[in-house]
Amino acid sequence: MKPLRALAYARRHRPRFVTELKEFVRFPSVSNQPKHAGDLRRCASWLAAHLRHIGLEHVRIVPTGHHPIVYGAWQRARGCPTLLVYGHYDVQPPEPLEEWRTPPFEPVVKGNNLYGRGACDDKGQLFTHLKAMESYLKTERKLPVNVKCIFEGGEELGGSPGLESFVNRNQSALRADAALMSDTRMLGPGRPALGYAQRGNIRFELEVCGPRHDLHSGNFGGAVHNPLQALCEIIAGLHDSEGRVTIPGFYDKVREWSSEERAYMERTGPKDEDILRDADVPRDWGEAGYSLYERVTIRPALTLNGINGGYNGAGVKTVIPARATAKMSIRLVPDQNPREVERLVRRHIVQATPSSVSVKMKTLGVSNPALVNRNHPALRAAAFAYQKGFGSKPVFLRSGGSVPAASIFQKSLGIPTVLMGFALPDDRIHAPNEKFHLPNFYRGIETSIWYLAAAGKLENTSRQNAPQKAWHA
Amino acid sequence: MKPLRALAYARRHRPRFVTELKEFVRFPSVSNQPKHAGDLRRCASWLAAHLRHIGLEHVRIVPTGHHPIVYGAWQRARGCPTLLVYGHYDVQPPEPLEEWRTPPFEPVVKGNNLYGRGACDDKGQLFTHLKAMESYLKTERKLPVNVKCIFEGGEELGGSPGLESFVNRNQSALRADAALMSDTRMLGPGRPALGYAQRGNIRFELEVCGPRHDLHSGNFGGAVHNPLQALCEIIAGLHDSEGRVTIPGFYDKVREWSSEERAYMERTGPKDEDILRDADVPRDWGEAGYSLYERVTIRPALTLNGINGGYNGAGVKTVIPARATAKMSIRLVPDQNPREVERLVRRHIVQATPSSVSVKMKTLGVSNPALVNRNHPALRAAAFAYQKGFGSKPVFLRSGGSVPAASIFQKSLGIPTVLMGFALPDDRIHAPNEKFHLPNFYRGIETSIWYLAAAGKLENTSRQNAPQKAWHA
Repeated sequence: MKPLRALAYARRHRPRFVTELKEFVRFPSVSNQPKHAGDLRRCASWLAAHLRHIGLEHVRIVPTGHHPIVYGAWQRARGCPTLLVYGHYDVQPPEPLEEWRTPPFEPVVKGNNLYGRGACDDKGQLFTHLKAMESYLKTERKLPVNVKCIFEGGEELGGSPGLESFVNRNQSALRADAALMSDTRMLGPGRPALGYAQRGNIRFELEVCGPRHDLHSGNFGGAVHNPLQALCEIIAGLHDSEGRVTIPGFYDKVREWSSEERAYMERTGPKDEDILRDADVPRDWGEAGYSLYERVTIRPALTLNGINGGYNGAGVKTVIPARATAKMSIRLVPDQNPREVERLVRRHIVQATPSSVSVKMKTLGVSNPALVNRNHPALRAAAFAYQKGFGSKPVFLRSGGSVPAASIFQKSLGIPTVLMGFALPDDRIHAPNEKFHLPNFYRGIETSIWYLAAAGKLENTSRQNAPQKAWHA
Repeated sequence: MKPLRALAYARRHRPRFVTELKEFVRFPSVSNQPKHAGDLRRCASWLAAHLRHIGLEHVRIVPTGHHPIVYGAWQRARGCPTLLVYGHYDVQPPEPLEEWRTPPFEPVVKGNNLYGRGACDDKGQLFTHLKAMESYLKTERKLPVNVKCIFEGGEELGGSPGLESFVNRNQSALRADAALMSDTRMLGPGRPALGYAQRGNIRFELEVCGPRHDLHSGNFGGAVHNPLQALCEIIAGLHDSEGRVTIPGFYDKVREWSSEERAYMERTGPKDEDILRDADVPRDWGEAGYSLYERVTIRPALTLNGINGGYNGAGVKTVIPARATAKMSIRLVPDQNPREVERLVRRHIVQATPSSVSVKMKTLGVSNPALVNRNHPALRAAAFAYQKGFGSKPVFLRSGGSVPAASIFQKSLGIPTVLMGFALPDDRIHAPNEKFHLPNFYRGIETSIWYLAAAGKLENTSRQNAPQKAWHA
């Protein structure tokens, strides 16, 4: 049976849905900036109220060691399977603020786009599923599948630390047949993509210390190792001239893929020129022998995310700074083990640091690479829903990013995750002027409506209709 | 005749002198931060009023293309030579603010020290000469030598650009027999030093640009050259593993000194362990074959003063930043030509930049190295005054820093400059918690009193007692 009433409802209420999404985007829920902890709490309250408002049950705000998780469920589809719907309501920091054309937390619609931090990643994408459920519940008074929703506030912290312990402690309460999330990208407008692989991630902070305090560069320049220079020397040594990471052992566990898989990727994935255009750079860089799509998906990468040290205000200040810091992240692929790579990196950096300075390293987060079988029924159902929502067949795509949730659900709950992305390559997620393409918002809602219907027909492997179990928060 | 009345006056009024110096330090006269332009104007007005107050004449605030110059003179010592007294009332930026134990512009006396930005560099040192003149004028109603004072507000801009054009345009009005300034360091408490050589300086700003906007490091990491990494690679390539600058031609014009001069330096200069202790670092770094004193005086040096790029707030933000910036300064020695070295550096950096990123370079300031004959009568008179003021004979010392004024006076007025420093190696000039050792303030005043007397007996080579000429501002 076609979900006609839900689809009609969804179309009728588009303007209100956008208004609500703007409310949601207005919360500056920047999870990695402690000053925003209250904003995350307020955002979680708003989201929980919204879940109740659309008709979900068992709604709760579950505290974690980090930011709270918002939970809600609807479990009255007797005999039907259960879908775990995941999303995150926290966002990346908006900095650098001066590059935003409109304030990051004052969402505004211009043309076909909604601008604001989190409009796409992940508030807008998360919202498609809520609006799909609402469209059923307000027209049919039921969903075609059992649903458990987990919306976390710690995805952008790296590694979703609060989610991981929450899922591990509540394995039986969270039993489901598949997980669904929208936090990835399509190939382009009208070119939907289902994610089946994501890279893992380790995030480091590095501090190189030299003199106890800043020194006058005239009086000491030439006799003291400058921590900024030492940091540059350490970092420059992490890649060879071909763009390969030089850390001994770094590539040892990296899986080599069959020529069939690489041919599939070449056929279905973005071309080099697509990636260069999306990145807006004149030329590529990196490991020879791999397409750019391969470099950002099946090859690991070490990226500097920030460096700071010395004086960077107007004019010059002739100092040798006492210290210099760097932030970096390493994207991991199957079968690299994050903790093993972490050890390799630490050992290498300690060895690469000359005795004229000292170095401190701090690991800020870790997540595993994730991989899903492209032929799983839950993914085939998703391909059908996409076809209905967007009018074209999706490709199965690898992503270079990391959604720790997918690997957590795989590892802890033993279920595959459908990565049904509605973001466009030029949506500038994590960057200034992030936007969400509103036609994708509307089509995303319809795709989700179709998916809920299709998911209801999957085999009920979790065999559960039990009432809500007690939580272990 | 001994200047007994002036000395007695100076001793009696020490507490008031400190109070006045605190007033002077309170102005946040940060010349290279445009927001402080008004503070520099107010500081110049205060200083001009103070010059009048102590009895100087012809006091004027002279506009320049940069910050104003404060001028004052006393020219009634008929037949006596003329001394050009120089100092600068502008200061280095106080950043990083969080490392100050007391606010930088709220000067405070703790123990024997006055803390505050500029307390030592150069407000405190400049003030010694004003208080010496006051001590004569309030007791004898005259000075033992003719004096022209120039106090500029652009020394910390690099190259003293306002001063240079002012001096060049007013060569005849500024005629003098020698210049006197206190903007250098002693060897230690009770170990006075007369500067006879200073390094020159070129300051650069570097910007490496990659993608048009920040990119998600997951989606693009491995396929796009990270500007931060590229910057590190460029910078790491500027030195070899022995600490020598790799820029082709960089050392071509560097003067090699005789074994006699190097033996003199070894005998009179700071030892390696003194410099390491002052720098508060565990070990040295730099060019083999040179003592640390030689490395920071007769050898050029390239120093990173700041690097910034990407996200440096709390937590992590997984971006490939669009750009990265660096500030650096190059200390020059005889016979390097700043403009020639500037060309070498620019050419090298352009060549070292890979085509995957682009680079922009901006020169922020240039000054020449300066060298004075240690046997000039003005320097011998200074040694005598020092012996009187500090009770010990000064050594003749090279400085690694740059006081453009000395090379400007040499080049434009043809006079030597007496570099009579009262700063201690641990006074943290240019760094947080800058201080001035008050016993050096008091002894500096007495040394200046003795020097004014001794300078009055130098040969009057400038043959002038003419009234004030019109200015070319």
